[in-house]
Amino acid sequence: MKKVINNPDNYVDEAVEGVICAYGDKVRLLNGDKRILLTNYPVRDGKVGIVTAGGFGHLPVFLGYVGQGMLDGCAIGNVFASPSSHKMSEMIKACDYGNGVLCLYGNYGGDKMNFEIAREVAQMNNTETRSVIVKDDVASSPADMADKRRGVAGMVYAFKIAGAAAEQMMNLDDVVEVTEHALSNIRTIGVALSPCVVPQVGKPTFSIDENEIEIGMGIHGEPGIEVRTMMTADEITTVMLERILADMPLVRGDEASVMVNGLGATPLEELLIVYRKLHMLLGEIGVSLYMPHIGEFATSMEMAGFSITVMKLDDQLKALLRAPGNTPFYSSFNK
Amino acid sequence: MKKVINNPDNYVDEAVEGVICAYGDKVRLLNGDKRILLTNYPVRDGKVGIVTAGGFGHLPVFLGYVGQGMLDGCAIGNVFASPSSHKMSEMIKACDYGNGVLCLYGNYGGDKMNFEIAREVAQMNNTETRSVIVKDDVASSPADMADKRRGVAGMVYAFKIAGAAAEQMMNLDDVVEVTEHALSNIRTIGVALSPCVVPQVGKPTFSIDENEIEIGMGIHGEPGIEVRTMMTADEITTVMLERILADMPLVRGDEASVMVNGLGATPLEELLIVYRKLHMLLGEIGVSLYMPHIGEFATSMEMAGFSITVMKLDDQLKALLRAPGNTPFYSSFNK
Repeated sequence: MKKVINNPDNYVDEAVEGVICAYGDKVRLLNGDKRILLTNYPVRDGKVGIVTAGGFGHLPVFLGYVGQGMLDGCAIGNVFASPSSHKMSEMIKACDYGNGVLCLYGNYGGDKMNFEIAREVAQMNNTETRSVIVKDDVASSPADMADKRRGVAGMVYAFKIAGAAAEQMMNLDDVVEVTEHALSNIRTIGVALSPCVVPQVGKPTFSIDENEIEIGMGIHGEPGIEVRTMMTADEITTVMLERILADMPLVRGDEASVMVNGLGATPLEELLIVYRKLHMLLGEIGVSLYMPHIGEFATSMEMAGFSITVMKLDDQLKALLRAPGNTPFYSSFNK
Repeated sequence: MKKVINNPDNYVDEAVEGVICAYGDKVRLLNGDKRILLTNYPVRDGKVGIVTAGGFGHLPVFLGYVGQGMLDGCAIGNVFASPSSHKMSEMIKACDYGNGVLCLYGNYGGDKMNFEIAREVAQMNNTETRSVIVKDDVASSPADMADKRRGVAGMVYAFKIAGAAAEQMMNLDDVVEVTEHALSNIRTIGVALSPCVVPQVGKPTFSIDENEIEIGMGIHGEPGIEVRTMMTADEITTVMLERILADMPLVRGDEASVMVNGLGATPLEELLIVYRKLHMLLGEIGVSLYMPHIGEFATSMEMAGFSITVMKLDDQLKALLRAPGNTPFYSSFNK
């Protein structure tokens, strides 16, 4: 696997520099620190700040959603490694507009530990914070251990809902409540077809046979629930949707937004073939679809495979989902 | 290479069905024909119709740009194969709003031949048409044979400019003129790192050694101008930009929009590293950048590699570039 990179040690910094070169109108660095990205849009006093943090290598997750109507700040780690609590606390401070900050991030050990420390620092600085942890990956733990589930592509929906709620000037309690409500209605499952290469490592993170597919694999190559012989797109989609519906049943009359997310190397053509089948299967049980998200939202560099996320909607979530959002890699206008 | 598909014979139809399932509010089929996609937005009487056609397997090119402010129609071929003249002429008829139709497409034999026949049919039906052929790939022929150059990612800029001009109710002559003006200021060059697989063929279209890169390769695997040992991102970018500037010099004070387009499997992180270097190199010669386009705009399914397109701007082109455009895979709001 060939990578278009320079010195692997500069991989993250150079990509972040690219973001600033391209989108310096929408985002900026905090005091030139390439590991803390902030919105460059005007923010109203008293808006709840929405921040995240996480390892690099998943673009557009995480930093690609900093802008307007989604995230106000993102602390950036090394590839697949959490940023430090220090970066997080600087970011939280910069995103405190007077009514507190929501820390919204995936259920990973390093991110959790560092955000806990950063929130303690924030408290000493009189910034109120709350944490909401994304645990949408149904394949990563069974339902009776749902608290151990990893956060994956569903966090993009959570960023959108939380960001829109904050933009409507909801207070911190209400932003937390609606974000948790959204997450209770979000489920994701992924499949991996091929591995990715961490630049500083230089070789694939795992291997999958040419005629196999791993259902439920995590975005860092965490083991899935099942290795199966390669199936058709319709068969894969059916198996994945069954897993989601077993965890979050949908019934006739329900509405949902579905994200078909490419992990990096899987063509858009194939994501559309998957969406077609989801549309058929959900249509058969009387579920109607709203604002599809088809493309690359949360990746693992050049990993092949995709994930399916279902967000069950109500009127409040629909309104927040369609509210304006504009970041370097997300626009509500073409959803 | 594993593909998430069903029967390869249904690949195109099923992906198009996916488009309709997802974006039926923005686009529609002509009489249910899965090979003719039309805008579903209201179109003002007298607007010049903008249409294209081409082989499948390059999403979002071509059909992903049908919508508002870009294309009104697209005829869809099989993978890497032109649609028939019959499909094209039906599409042209459907996109005649009273003031003629611009056929805007890449410089490929099949597309040219079929569009010529389709335009003759249109003439018999009293629909005025004009052709503008995209020939932006500087690697595909030397400057003294520029008429033989292939059309690649630069056509996305051409779709945007032509679509915006038509939306402003320019007449057919003026739309042709500004589109040709744009194309005279657009140059592209690509590199391929790995091949793609045509579903009905089932094996890679060509091979590249693990430590090699092919500069100038076409999006169907057409031979490039040079096979080189793998270089750093900065070196590759420098070589590619030199080729573009040799063909279209830029000088201090010029403004340009740059597209860094992933061919399918190349991660966004790497495209940003390329953009960073382009920003540096163009900054050094006093060229400023406007409205970056970074992502997957014109692909070859799972091919790894990328292309660089430079569009030199003037006030008219800037205004048309930033005019509203909204299609399933392009929004002017996040550029």
